[in-house]
Parts: sequence; structure tokens; C-alpha cells
Amino acid sequence: MEKRKKFMLQEADIPTQWYNITADMKNKPQPMLNPQTKEPLKAEDLYPLFAEELSRQEVNQTDAWIDIPEEVREKYKIYRPTPLVRATGLEKALDTPAHIYFKNESVSPVGSHKLNSALPQAYYNKMDGTTNITTETGAGQWGTALAFAAKTFGLELAVYMVKISYEQKPYRRSLMQTWGAQVIASPSMSTKAGRKIITDHPNYQGSLGTAISEAIELAMQTPNCKYTLGSVLNHVALHQTIIGLEAEKQMEMAGEYPDVVIGCFGGGSNFSGITFPFLRHNMLGKKNTRFVAAEPASCPKLTRGRFQYDFGDETGYTPLIPMFTLGHKFAPANIHAGGLRYHGAGSIVSQLLKDGLLEATAIKQLETFEAGVLFAQTEGIVPAPESTHAIAAAIREANQAKEEGKSKVILFNLSGHGLIDMSAYDQYLAGDLTNHEVTDEEISSILAQN
Amino acid sequence: MEKRKKFMLQEADIPTQWYNITADMKNKPQPMLNPQTKEPLKAEDLYPLFAEELSRQEVNQTDAWIDIPEEVREKYKIYRPTPLVRATGLEKALDTPAHIYFKNESVSPVGSHKLNSALPQAYYNKMDGTTNITTETGAGQWGTALAFAAKTFGLELAVYMVKISYEQKPYRRSLMQTWGAQVIASPSMSTKAGRKIITDHPNYQGSLGTAISEAIELAMQTPNCKYTLGSVLNHVALHQTIIGLEAEKQMEMAGEYPDVVIGCFGGGSNFSGITFPFLRHNMLGKKNTRFVAAEPASCPKLTRGRFQYDFGDETGYTPLIPMFTLGHKFAPANIHAGGLRYHGAGSIVSQLLKDGLLEATAIKQLETFEAGVLFAQTEGIVPAPESTHAIAAAIREANQAKEEGKSKVILFNLSGHGLIDMSAYDQYLAGDLTNHEVTDEEISSILAQN
Repeated sequence: MEKRKKFMLQEADIPTQWYNITADMKNKPQPMLNPQTKEPLKAEDLYPLFAEELSRQEVNQTDAWIDIPEEVREKYKIYRPTPLVRATGLEKALDTPAHIYFKNESVSPVGSHKLNSALPQAYYNKMDGTTNITTETGAGQWGTALAFAAKTFGLELAVYMVKISYEQKPYRRSLMQTWGAQVIASPSMSTKAGRKIITDHPNYQGSLGTAISEAIELAMQTPNCKYTLGSVLNHVALHQTIIGLEAEKQMEMAGEYPDVVIGCFGGGSNFSGITFPFLRHNMLGKKNTRFVAAEPASCPKLTRGRFQYDFGDETGYTPLIPMFTLGHKFAPANIHAGGLRYHGAGSIVSQLLKDGLLEATAIKQLETFEAGVLFAQTEGIVPAPESTHAIAAAIREANQAKEEGKSKVILFNLSGHGLIDMSAYDQYLAGDLTNHEVTDEEISSILAQN
Repeated sequence: MEKRKKFMLQEADIPTQWYNITADMKNKPQPMLNPQTKEPLKAEDLYPLFAEELSRQEVNQTDAWIDIPEEVREKYKIYRPTPLVRATGLEKALDTPAHIYFKNESVSPVGSHKLNSALPQAYYNKMDGTTNITTETGAGQWGTALAFAAKTFGLELAVYMVKISYEQKPYRRSLMQTWGAQVIASPSMSTKAGRKIITDHPNYQGSLGTAISEAIELAMQTPNCKYTLGSVLNHVALHQTIIGLEAEKQMEMAGEYPDVVIGCFGGGSNFSGITFPFLRHNMLGKKNTRFVAAEPASCPKLTRGRFQYDFGDETGYTPLIPMFTLGHKFAPANIHAGGLRYHGAGSIVSQLLKDGLLEATAIKQLETFEAGVLFAQTEGIVPAPESTHAIAAAIREANQAKEEGKSKVILFNLSGHGLIDMSAYDQYLAGDLTNHEVTDEEISSILAQN
């Protein structure tokens, strides 16, 4: 019989609700705290920063299913449902008995899964009467997604883009500008946080932590303006569950159920999206699937960080978040997977990891690019540097299945393509990339500053 | 009732045959000629240059349907069937009564329709026992597609890339190298044709015509090596009909039939692909659809060229081809739609145009980028500079429908995305792009050299 390669849904199959995993968790994630009073934050406390419905979603631990607004679902149709693909070419190259599937989020017009949360965030802000939103972007995937979403719902957007990316990734900047966004290299002179760091360190190349501080400050000081974030937060994880909900239906079409589900890990947005709907069946005692977060060895918050309250940004403007963290002053090495260079994990994932419901693995840069090139040559798609971490972890699982002579069903999320990150592949093919490691002493010393 | 946005086929719906329009044409295209003897070329005469089955397809004017080899169809599943999309966002922005549909070929992993012919060309060469293939690439879309196809079927590939693109489009070069191809900037010292032009013009930035000459020369002088081309030829148009064959089924799903079908026009590959299956119904007297080829005003072979025999390359290595041409020494202005900068049209399209079965329209660069930005902002996808020509023509049709207060069903082919061409959008947004026109005197003087 012909082996099926691709499992396609119709747009009527796009889920009508997102899945809120906190409603089903025995141990709920701890609340965010006000850094001054150390009081747990309620939805209202978040209104100055985020749209009201997003604030409510952020603290909702009771409703397992949240309706997707019709206007958002309508826009999802631009690229959703995304395909589930059997990686037959990769399986053959690995000569593995494992069946490898991937959910292809790279078909989104912005090239990654980030649009899944950008659209509802723009929508809810519009509904509140907000006219302007701000955000930060490192590698640029979140910024590009939000630029299109803001244009779609008629909002003005200002993006603080980490200065080194602004200069090294001109295509990302052009994309955001094509969709009508203002893009500002961070640190900038437009905020107190930016001016301070430029004064103290005139040649500073920027960091995600600084860009977050600038975006928050601008939002706080502009009328009718709110801040948005593309990862870490609970409402972002909620929106991203559309990935796993579709994948569940598609695995059914394939007549299989995953033994292991894998996602790359930065703040947790795509990982949460692909895993939570499957994890639900584990929590209900119906399945026994493994869930593996693949993080860079140079930024190993899940495998070597500490579970504690920490700030989400460098300056300390955010609430305190319960997270596995390397410390908010941690400055990750300049690896190409810019989207994974973040010091902390979202509070839901952190709680699930603490409770042993998830696993994590750290992978070095060269192994990820080796996996990325093999994937490109066998499946055609050049993966984003972030997504190569998930591929590398899937390859490890497939090789293990081969060694053990066992069949195994592996599912991973291809969070995005790498067509705008080709300079990274250039450097890899030229032999100019290196691994970056971080010592226990470094981690301890940064955490000691918290 | 909910308006449907996307029409998706399953992989079982991928056509099993390509459509060979020449079998149904009353006036067949004239044959290619041997430039020395002026004798019509038979399939065997093409064997030194092309794979045998490709040579037979090139001259086949009797079989309307040609089987797609199972191995090729298997690889098509990586990205086919591609979606048919109702451009609801664009319709709304234009406030038009027209229904606008586009076939989204940009979802291919190489970002364009070029893979539709690259896969069978690599496959048939492999079947012949060929070990090495050569080609040229201008903007880089054909080269990237062939790089993946060659890797897929285990062939070595050398790509002559027009020097100015080699330097200005490093991402395209990296892509080809990631898939394992050798990429050589043209003109190069590796061929007689290249050495001559470098000697005569040391600072020459290259052209498609020169790159073709180099690729042919290398193929002729290498054992077990054949040449491949991504447009113009009849067998390329044949493979590309898979676009229109799928679109036909999808328009049926949408419950509509196009009044006008549009494609951008370089050598004719994507235009032939989207139009020929629909044109068939016109030729059989069952429909009365219009077909519009959208070419750049700076390279107006269809609207202002002459129908005559001409060479396909600058040096004159190719057979003589019956075509609408501006002369094989024509050097088009350096517009960003590099894939449309070619002096001639394929022989089938040329015959159809001569017989009044097709229309053509010429569009200036600024109008195409204006259309591209509007499309990106309303439909999310940033189109390739080539594809913006089709969008601009579709917008003209939609505006006309509005003026006339008539409904109209418009279908165009989105041949590729522009994520690797963002520098073009940068220049457009900065106001640095200009229109390029060509005078009647220039055209006459180049044609006089033929």
C-alpha cells in the first residue's frame, strides 16, 4: 500500500476552542507576584499592561476550553490548518524503524507558529479600543508575526528589535516594515531604559531583556497603548494549543498515536502548543506519552536552571514569575537560534517539569545544524535554527529506536522555516560555527544576583 | 453562510498525468531547428543535451496526457497539492464585486513552482544513468529548486548563477549549497564562453544568456552530464500543468469557474502551468475564459516583440526556437523580477498568442510593487517580485469589474513568495525603485542584430 506522506484537514476542522491546560492540572502553576508587595496578581492588576481578555486568560485556571473568536478563526484560515507530515525521507536516511511525524507550522505567511498568538493578541487589543501596541523581537519571528496581525486588525505597532539582529537580519526588518510596523533598534534613545544603557555602555549591541524593558516603558507612557509578548506567558501557551489540537486529529487520520512529542524550547510557546493537548490524555490517565523540550546547551534553563520567582526582563519592569530560570541577568551566548536565547521558562511548563510530567534535553549548536541540513536534504524544508533543536531531539529518539530494534511513533513541531536565516547555514557549511557551553559557576553567580 | 477561504485537496488528488496542450492545438507550434542545417529537430537530436524522455516530451504533439512517474508523484507529496485560496482580504480592500482566487505555489519548500519541473527533470536524468547535471539561474528560484531535486535523486549539480545575483542574493546561494549543489558565479573561468566574456569585458556582471551558454558548454564537455532548463521549453510547460489541473478541481470545490486566468510571464513556465488546463476547455468549445500573461514593461516580448526563430541563449549554443522575442542579444533592465528578465517566450505560448487564444499585458515595476505590498498587507504572503506582476494584473481586472458593476471570477497563480527578495521591498519602501521603459528604436536595433 502507498505510504501516506501528508495529512491535511479542511478549514472547517480548525478548532473552535483553545485548550487551557491549567484547568486540568492537579498542581496549579503558582501565581505571578507584584514585585513590591509580593501579592499574587489578579486579572485587573494586568489590565494596564495587557488587553483585558488576555489578562483574564492569563490567570484563568478553571475553564479547560476557551472559545476562539470568530474574527480570529477567520484569519487563521489564511494558513491553518497546517499539514501534518510523515518524514519518510528522514526515516529512510536514518534507517530507523521509528515513524517520524512533524507538524509543519512553517507554512504560515510569516514563516513560523508565532502568528497563532499574534492574531488573537491584536484582536483583543482592538476590541478594547487600544490603538497602539508595542513589543520586542530578538530573532524577529515574533515581530514579523505581530506586524501582520497588527495590520490585519488596524493597530499601530512599534517593535523594539535587538540591535545586533536589526543590523544582521535586514530581511526581518524589511518584512515588518512591509506590513507597516515601526521598527526601532534597541537600545534606543526613545526610552529611559534605553538611554540609560546607551549612556553606560555606548557600544552595547542589545538584548531581549533590554528590548522588553523598552517596549513596556513605551506602552506605559503612550495613551491607548498596550504591550504584547510572544512567549512565556500563559495566554500565549493557550493560543498555541491550536497546533496540538490539529495534530491530534491528524495523528488519528494517520492511525497512530505518538509515543513521544517534541518541541524546541525558548520561552515555551511552540512547545506548549504541540504538547499540551496530548499531555491532557496523560493527565486523565489514558495515555503514557513522553514529552521532550529541546533547549540549547548554551541556555539550559530547564536542565540546569533553578525553579524560583524571577523577572521576565532585564530591568525588572515585569511582575515576578514562577519559573525555571538562569537568572534575569543571564546573557546567553550568541547562538543562531535567537528565539531560544531567553533566561526563563513559562510558569505552566515550569510547574509541569517540576512535577515530572515533562522531560527536557539540552543540545549543542553543531548537532542542531547537522540535524537541520539532513532534514533539508531529505524533507526539502530548511528549518529555522530554533526548530533544528526539535529535529535533533527527534533524530536521537529515532536512533535509539533503531539501536533497540523497537518501533516508536515520534511527533515533533517544525515551528518555522529558516529561509530568512540562511547566513547561519552559510557559517555552518563553512565550518565557522562553534558550540557554546556555560559552566556551573557562571550559572550560580548569575542566580546569586537575583 | 461562512465564506470559505481555502480549498484543500488530499494527496490522493494529486494528478497522475500532465496535460500536453500541443495534442489539442489546431495550429501546432513550429518545430525547433538545427541552426546550421535549418532542419527540424527530432527527439534524438536533443539526446546529447537533455534526458531522452524529456527530449521525447519536448517534441510530442500527439499524446494529450503523459503519465507522471510514481517516483516523481511521491516527491510531489512533499508540498502538493498546494492550496487554492480565495483572496477575501484583497477583495475587501479593493471593494470589488469580483471574486479573486489564487493558487498558492509559494508553499513549496523552495518557495516557488519551479520544483514541479525540477523533480521530473532530475528523475528522468537519473533513469538515463546520468550522474551530473548543469543549469543556470538568474534570480535563483530555478537553481534552488533543482538543487533540492538533484539531491533527492542523487545527482551532482553545477549551477551557473548570474554574477550580480550571486553577490546580491547570498541567501539563494546558501540555499543551493545547503542542498549540496556547486554554485559558480557567471561569467566564470570554467568555460570558453565565460573566459571570452571576462577577457573582453573584465567587469561584466553576468546575464542569463551568458549563464546558459556556460551551463550548456560544461554539460557538453563532461561525461555522463546533461543540461537542464527551468522555463521556455515545451517539457517544462508540460510538467507545470499540474498547477492548473489541481486548480481546476479546486475551482469546482469553490463552485465557480474563472472568467479570466492570469500568470506572470518570463519564459512561460508558471503561466503555462496555470492556464493550459483551463485553455483546453476553450479549445474544445466548452468555455470562453480569457487568459492574460503579465510581463514587465521593461522586457515586453509578448506585447512588443516579434514572432520569429531565435536562439535561447546569448552565445547561440541552443537550437533555433520559434518565439515572440526581443532578440537574443536583448539586455533587459535590472528590475527585481529577475525571473522575468528573458528575451523570448516558449514556442507553445508564442503560437497560442499568435492565434489569439491568449492576451498579454505589460506592467511597470512600481505598479507591481504597489500590488505586492497591498497583497502582503491583506493576504499575509509577501509575493516574489515576479508574482507581483500577476497580482497587479488581477487588481486591474478587479477594478474594472467594480467600474462596470459586474461580477467576475479571477484566478491567478502566486508563483512564489518573496521572503528571500526582501531587499527589493526595502528599496521600494524607501522610494528608491524606478520604472524602466524600452523604446521602439532599442527593440528594432537589437532585433536587427538577429
